[in-house]
Amino acid sequence: MEHDSILELLESVKTGAVTPEEALLQLKKQPFEDLGFAKIDHHRGLRHGVSEVIFGEGKTPEQIEGIVSAMAGRGQKNIMITRLSQDKADIVGKQHSLDYDPISRIGVCYRERAESPRGSIIVAAAGTSDLPVAEEAAVTAEVLGNKVDRLYDVGVAGLHRLLSYLDVIMSARVVIVAAGMEGALATVIGGLVACPVIAVPTSVGYGASFGGISALLTMLNSCAGNVSVVNIDNGFGAGYIASLINGG
Amino acid sequence: MEHDSILELLESVKTGAVTPEEALLQLKKQPFEDLGFAKIDHHRGLRHGVSEVIFGEGKTPEQIEGIVSAMAGRGQKNIMITRLSQDKADIVGKQHSLDYDPISRIGVCYRERAESPRGSIIVAAAGTSDLPVAEEAAVTAEVLGNKVDRLYDVGVAGLHRLLSYLDVIMSARVVIVAAGMEGALATVIGGLVACPVIAVPTSVGYGASFGGISALLTMLNSCAGNVSVVNIDNGFGAGYIASLINGG
Amino acid sequence: MEHDSILELLESVKTGAVTPEEALLQLKKQPFEDLGFAKIDHHRGLRHGVSEVIFGEGKTPEQIEGIVSAMAGRGQKNIMITRLSQDKADIVGKQHSLDYDPISRIGVCYRERAESPRGSIIVAAAGTSDLPVAEEAAVTAEVLGNKVDRLYDVGVAGLHRLLSYLDVIMSARVVIVAAGMEGALATVIGGLVACPVIAVPTSVGYGASFGGISALLTMLNSCAGNVSVVNIDNGFGAGYIASLINGG
Amino acid sequence: MEHDSILELLESVKTGAVTPEEALLQLKKQPFEDLGFAKIDHHRGLRHGVSEVIFGEGKTPEQIEGIVSAMAGRGQKNIMITRLSQDKADIVGKQHSLDYDPISRIGVCYRERAESPRGSIIVAAAGTSDLPVAEEAAVTAEVLGNKVDRLYDVGVAGLHRLLSYLDVIMSARVVIVAAGMEGALATVIGGLVACPVIAVPTSVGYGASFGGISALLTMLNSCAGNVSVVNIDNGFGAGYIASLINGG
Amino acid sequence: MEHDSILELLESVKTGAVTPEEALLQLKKQPFEDLGFAKIDHHRGLRHGVSEVIFGEGKTPEQIEGIVSAMAGRGQKNIMITRLSQDKADIVGKQHSLDYDPISRIGVCYRERAESPRGSIIVAAAGTSDLPVAEEAAVTAEVLGNKVDRLYDVGVAGLHRLLSYLDVIMSARVVIVAAGMEGALATVIGGLVACPVIAVPTSVGYGASFGGISALLTMLNSCAGNVSVVNIDNGFGAGYIASLINGG
Amino acid sequence: MEHDSILELLESVKTGAVTPEEALLQLKKQPFEDLGFAKIDHHRGLRHGVSEVIFGEGKTPEQIEGIVSAMAGRGQKNIMITRLSQDKADIVGKQHSLDYDPISRIGVCYRERAESPRGSIIVAAAGTSDLPVAEEAAVTAEVLGNKVDRLYDVGVAGLHRLLSYLDVIMSARVVIVAAGMEGALATVIGGLVACPVIAVPTSVGYGASFGGISALLTMLNSCAGNVSVVNIDNGFGAGYIASLINGG
Amino acid sequence: MEHDSILELLESVKTGAVTPEEALLQLKKQPFEDLGFAKIDHHRGLRHGVSEVIFGEGKTPEQIEGIVSAMAGRGQKNIMITRLSQDKADIVGKQHSLDYDPISRIGVCYRERAESPRGSIIVAAAGTSDLPVAEEAAVTAEVLGNKVDRLYDVGVAGLHRLLSYLDVIMSARVVIVAAGMEGALATVIGGLVACPVIAVPTSVGYGASFGGISALLTMLNSCAGNVSVVNIDNGFGAGYIASLINGG
Amino acid sequence: MEHDSILELLESVKTGAVTPEEALLQLKKQPFEDLGFAKIDHHRGLRHGVSEVIFGEGKTPEQIEGIVSAMAGRGQKNIMITRLSQDKADIVGKQHSLDYDPISRIGVCYRERAESPRGSIIVAAAGTSDLPVAEEAAVTAEVLGNKVDRLYDVGVAGLHRLLSYLDVIMSARVVIVAAGMEGALATVIGGLVACPVIAVPTSVGYGASFGGISALLTMLNSCAGNVSVVNIDNGFGAGYIASLINGG
Repeated sequence: MEHDSILELLESVKTGAVTPEEALLQLKKQPFEDLGFAKIDHHRGLRHGVSEVIFGEGKTPEQIEGIVSAMAGRGQKNIMITRLSQDKADIVGKQHSLDYDPISRIGVCYRERAESPRGSIIVAAAGTSDLPVAEEAAVTAEVLGNKVDRLYDVGVAGLHRLLSYLDVIMSARVVIVAAGMEGALATVIGGLVACPVIAVPTSVGYGASFGGISALLTMLNSCAGNVSVVNIDNGFGAGYIASLINGG
Repeated sequence: MEHDSILELLESVKTGAVTPEEALLQLKKQPFEDLGFAKIDHHRGLRHGVSEVIFGEGKTPEQIEGIVSAMAGRGQKNIMITRLSQDKADIVGKQHSLDYDPISRIGVCYRERAESPRGSIIVAAAGTSDLPVAEEAAVTAEVLGNKVDRLYDVGVAGLHRLLSYLDVIMSARVVIVAAGMEGALATVIGGLVACPVIAVPTSVGYGASFGGISALLTMLNSCAGNVSVVNIDNGFGAGYIASLINGG
Repeated sequence: MEHDSILELLESVKTGAVTPEEALLQLKKQPFEDLGFAKIDHHRGLRHGVSEVIFGEGKTPEQIEGIVSAMAGRGQKNIMITRLSQDKADIVGKQHSLDYDPISRIGVCYRERAESPRGSIIVAAAGTSDLPVAEEAAVTAEVLGNKVDRLYDVGVAGLHRLLSYLDVIMSARVVIVAAGMEGALATVIGGLVACPVIAVPTSVGYGASFGGISALLTMLNSCAGNVSVVNIDNGFGAGYIASLINGG
Repeated sequence: MEHDSILELLESVKTGAVTPEEALLQLKKQPFEDLGFAKIDHHRGLRHGVSEVIFGEGKTPEQIEGIVSAMAGRGQKNIMITRLSQDKADIVGKQHSLDYDPISRIGVCYRERAESPRGSIIVAAAGTSDLPVAEEAAVTAEVLGNKVDRLYDVGVAGLHRLLSYLDVIMSARVVIVAAGMEGALATVIGGLVACPVIAVPTSVGYGASFGGISALLTMLNSCAGNVSVVNIDNGFGAGYIASLINGG
Repeated sequence: MEHDSILELLESVKTGAVTPEEALLQLKKQPFEDLGFAKIDHHRGLRHGVSEVIFGEGKTPEQIEGIVSAMAGRGQKNIMITRLSQDKADIVGKQHSLDYDPISRIGVCYRERAESPRGSIIVAAAGTSDLPVAEEAAVTAEVLGNKVDRLYDVGVAGLHRLLSYLDVIMSARVVIVAAGMEGALATVIGGLVACPVIAVPTSVGYGASFGGISALLTMLNSCAGNVSVVNIDNGFGAGYIASLINGG
Repeated sequence: MEHDSILELLESVKTGAVTPEEALLQLKKQPFEDLGFAKIDHHRGLRHGVSEVIFGEGKTPEQIEGIVSAMAGRGQKNIMITRLSQDKADIVGKQHSLDYDPISRIGVCYRERAESPRGSIIVAAAGTSDLPVAEEAAVTAEVLGNKVDRLYDVGVAGLHRLLSYLDVIMSARVVIVAAGMEGALATVIGGLVACPVIAVPTSVGYGASFGGISALLTMLNSCAGNVSVVNIDNGFGAGYIASLINGG
Repeated sequence: MEHDSILELLESVKTGAVTPEEALLQLKKQPFEDLGFAKIDHHRGLRHGVSEVIFGEGKTPEQIEGIVSAMAGRGQKNIMITRLSQDKADIVGKQHSLDYDPISRIGVCYRERAESPRGSIIVAAAGTSDLPVAEEAAVTAEVLGNKVDRLYDVGVAGLHRLLSYLDVIMSARVVIVAAGMEGALATVIGGLVACPVIAVPTSVGYGASFGGISALLTMLNSCAGNVSVVNIDNGFGAGYIASLINGG
Repeated sequence: MEHDSILELLESVKTGAVTPEEALLQLKKQPFEDLGFAKIDHHRGLRHGVSEVIFGEGKTPEQIEGIVSAMAGRGQKNIMITRLSQDKADIVGKQHSLDYDPISRIGVCYRERAESPRGSIIVAAAGTSDLPVAEEAAVTAEVLGNKVDRLYDVGVAGLHRLLSYLDVIMSARVVIVAAGMEGALATVIGGLVACPVIAVPTSVGYGASFGGISALLTMLNSCAGNVSVVNIDNGFGAGYIASLINGG
């Protein structure tokens, strides 16, 4: 049960539309449920405004399905699973309504799309190899109810490509930048906009890129004051934080 | 450069008024002039609600004074100088109205305080040694017009201190966490709140803390999805980003 | 080598029964033979309450079987094999009575369970992916005769899950904490208990977790004074040390 | 928060005594208040046998004195200050009864020595340069009420020095090993004893010792199963953990 | 469209052989063309004097073919694809005229060889395992119109092999040195020649070569002042820069 | 004796203006001179086209003076000393005609300025703190006979400053880029020009810039193919290589 | 190049028989040709008592066979091939007389065993997993004509095993120590013997052993003054150096 | 008492020139002496053939003097103190006959020079800044009774300087190479000689030399099979090992 719906419930109690006893039934007293291999956090929706998200990597399809079933059993919608391979998606999709995107590797069970997505989040990526991470960020933000604009293949070695989108960039509420190799795109965009920039280093590259360390250091040392950084390849985190900034 | 002006240029080549070499240079510059320079410069004018900031470290008092004088001469208020030592502050303060805070080492020339600061930013710090960085973040946010609440000495090894401030923490719009050593505070707070958390690793510690690397890695690997990270000891960046998120 | 025996040696040199070169080697070895070898050997006899342990990784099933046969031939019970894959377990199990656990990958030949296990060791794990390492620690401690309580999926980003077990945690004689990613759980538990905490970083994570280095550094820099650390993924070592502390 | 108190809260919302927003915050805090704060606070009362410890480095003499005064005002004895320089000790000693040791740099205010120290802790050090760290461990353990035996300058390159103390080593309840450079002493002692070994890497060395990293890695990779490790130069932690193991 | 051909076009405008309108048609007004997955930079030929190069690694054969088709459709010759596996080359070669070299893994579509290659570039390699990287550099330089001399297997541990080529080495306009392991060849050649040396560390080696880091550091620290360095295994970059220096 | 003047001498021999015997006198038969603490390489001018350069750091003023005297004694002009502190310059300047620049810390003894400097080298720097390194590069190139244009304070976080110099940048024969922190300037300029770019990481920065490592990695991973890299703070190397490329 | 020959060269320039450019190149090469090439080449002839060694890794069986054929064609005996897999050995063995050892992965073609091997080299290994590297060292030394004694499984965590071989250890002319994990064995043996110790770190281990880095650092920081180190897993180098010390 | 003199004593016992009782008086039964802060190893001369060496760094002059007095009291000659600053040497020299060398920072108390030094050890250094480390190696070897030839300033960027000493180099029994920065000299010399090469990386350099790590890695990865390596700046170790190889 999420933040907004609980507030709505309390308002109904205030107006008398719902009795305190009925409200009590709807509130989950038990903050988590123990499945043996995992504890599902039902209090999280209240605390975070966003329900728990399942990190699919390293879990068996059976474990994922078990968690989804427990959440769906409580009426949870928009159950998001990240790092979900096609194979696992096929299995989970047999038991549950699943909306799966193979590029971002995100699956959403019992999806309910927001009617009017909030504000504007831009996701920019330096090269085509950065797309999976960029899409993980973009799809995450969309699932959480945000409007997302994508600017792909705008690396700084061909500056005019980026500059041709100046209007779009400057109107953003928050920008996510996914870049590997030297990761300079975050700083260049950071210097162009007056909003927060979430930088995601990607593990794309070879040689001295060291699996994303080079891009990570570049972003941490950014001369643009509005850049903060998440873990290498952590597209989900970037999308989630951008959504929070955008009012999610 | 529009269609017509290129044709015009080519006509000039034909007549000999422009040499082919000169024309080539004009053509090279075309995509940048069309898209970039003018718009960016105009855009900076629009952003001037946010004051210019001088990074004081590595500049002589004379250099700082020169920059302040130039800015003040254009009527600039709230000129912020970070990493300003007491010695340099004494010199700069002789020529200009200077509001100097020795803990955060921030000086503000010709300060004008906001009458009604915006929203609520929380700055939490794990230990007393993290205070200079935490204060750099807090004072930065205050200078930029935000209301700031401070929660200091709330390290996770004494969890009850942190939990006694649940009311304050849960009502924040954005939280800044400054921590050295193991840097776990960012994750614990990240799990308690429904807003973005800006984590600042500090260079406090000894041995395997490696001047802040340990805290930096902890924060980048945070299990809490709402944590993003800035450079080691970068209190200014944290305060600036928090201000942007808070509507600054 | 005592005064008298050196004199005796010198007499033998004089008579020619021992050459000077042979005598020189005897003198070289003197302080070690006097002090070391015999005592150490005797001491090993005293320690045999603790069973011999075979590190299964990198050994062929035939090598493992050979060692087990030799030990069993001397009447050894509770022969423990760590990092034993299912495949190797199948082969070893054909020749010997084997108690095998596929999660911890520990096999015990000719197991004899303690009738009344000692005291209380708690094994806490931050996430489901940390289970194999946590189980290696837990099963090791159980095989060595200890009572073990497991607290799994109690990561610090959902603090209430951990806090709901405060009673259990506070009654421990020693706590083992297995955690990957940012590894903050060790410090939080360390701050709650008044007993030693053995922290095991796990190689779980991605990006800047660097195969367990991030968790290792977090644990080494713990602000809680009662935390010591073993190697990444070294569940066996944690279980063994906890057993020693618990009186094993 | 129990069933009844939530119902009571909802009744108050209904009557208007509590606004929905206030009720929402109460619900957010619920699992923490139910489970956490009170118990932790109560628990701290139970732990006060172990004295509070002040980390002196990075604090001004005035700050230290303030903390000591506050503690002494509550009747606290054995107030321990670590990493206390001679200069600061001179200042603190003017106001308070201070027992200061310049090698370990530990000061104890209002010291009360245990009449019959517990058990036996051995502190072994590889070289004379490791003495400050070894003494920090030894003095810490003594202040906490333990009997400590010191074995200094017993590096493994002169094995007979170590072996001449076999009797002492083998009778220990717990051993602390402080070593820099290659740090091999922890493993050699670990192989000789049947009790836990706490290894403290020291920052002693040059070249590829990298300020203690070499010794730290050696100790983490120890082939002896009973060795756990604390941070580089963390003599206090080693002494504190050894005291806990020894029944402190 | 490349630098030289645009100048030629402008010369034709000057002489009247081509009307300004015809020239305008030939100039790409739109600096890039949007293929969806990649934006091909047609303006690049003008700015860099060299057309865009396709980095084949991490692209599907279909993506590569699509980019080649788009470029070929505009009359582009010498379309270079680096890091192209044999498998992908077979597929691309079915649709386009492709000149493929399996050692350097470079493919060139619609190749037009320079009639009189420019100057002299030497490519030296320390060992046979460095050949793929050395050949990537050599073939790149050849495709860009340069004359290349190869000196292979001239590692510094057998100095006489290198010194037997003194004539060739000393007459070079620019030298490329590819070396793994300890990478000392760059410095030795750097001390022998009066021209720039481009050093390419290769990932060849084992143990403490750390995938090329050892060679990279050696080259960066070269005592020869004329050595600059590109990324590990970046043969293409070395060949491209050498071509620019050679007047390409 | 340098490359060009020897060729000139040989031409004079050919024409008969100089006899072979006179030429022999002018050629240095002995390729180096042993000063005890250093061997001066008189053959270097012939091999490298540039005379030996004295690295002033870590040499005493007396050692520097000794080398200068030996070189001047053979008629050497333009004897360049890098990393020369003001103190040492004062001492050396007493004995020899010395042209000293305190920002680049370069001294030149018996300077003879080129009448018509060659071509155009651009030196760009990201921030004011990068100036000493940038000036070391610029002054080196000037001493070696090149025309140098400086573009300072053109960091990528304020792109319009850089873009306002497009004319200058695009007309360069070679560009040197000095940048610390995140070092992105090299890539952005690399994408704008059609000539080689020599990137010099500087040790400017704090936190995760790690004394220049961050900038170094950024530059090595540059997406612009025309960027090669020299050691951190190696302004001299950059200026020397640029001079060689420019025809020096 | 002597006085006379330079004069002769200059005479040829005068007569026009040699162009000034050709003469310049001759002068450039002079110090190298005078001193270097011939002597080195002559010297190699003197060294051929030591057989040529082929590094098998990364070479195809065909390449290896080709090199062996060429060497055998010149009458070469004892042609040693290291890092030779069983598969490649099978192929090479079809064409040539091959003595292959699968543990050390060394093959020797046309082996001629020394009738009376020299002196005594000891190869000690800490664990069974270190055997392949230890055997590479041992077999290398044997092929080069030395007598080798093996001491395996003598890790320092069980000191009595090592000390039971004091006679053997103390009589060695040179000792090779192969050890992974913490690598302490080199120091302990180094302290017992009066001869050089060659330490070979192995990549055996897990977690913080980092593929041999931990053992490498331990060995470099050895407190025993007689220990020098070769690359990780470089058994061949250790055996070769030991042979040279032993008079090989 | 050293190896050779004990053998001589035993021979005298054999011939009857010395009685067993007299010999016993001369043999030290107690293998070490405890000074409180240090244990002097009197058995070391017997085991190692060389008496204990005092590492002066980090010891007070009083501690050094105490150890020297204890050793001199037993008739020990040639007591060597490394890393001894001028200040400490002045103090120690007041009480004892001291031979001090300020470049190598080695002091020898009660020196007795060998009448006919053994064999030939070459010490080569790449640059003048490497001299202190090279001299520590050279003086160590001389004190231990070896003949030493020095080849200084023979870095590989000026190969002809090195090659002019080919005769000297090729006649060595063992070569020590001290080099910082890129450390390539070890490999080049390793390829020229048929004897063992001991490589000492020095901490000389700047930027990416990382205090000697670059040179260390270069040397560990040497393509020359006869190179082994000691710790950064460990001139003593290199000299000591070379002496052992040379028959010391």
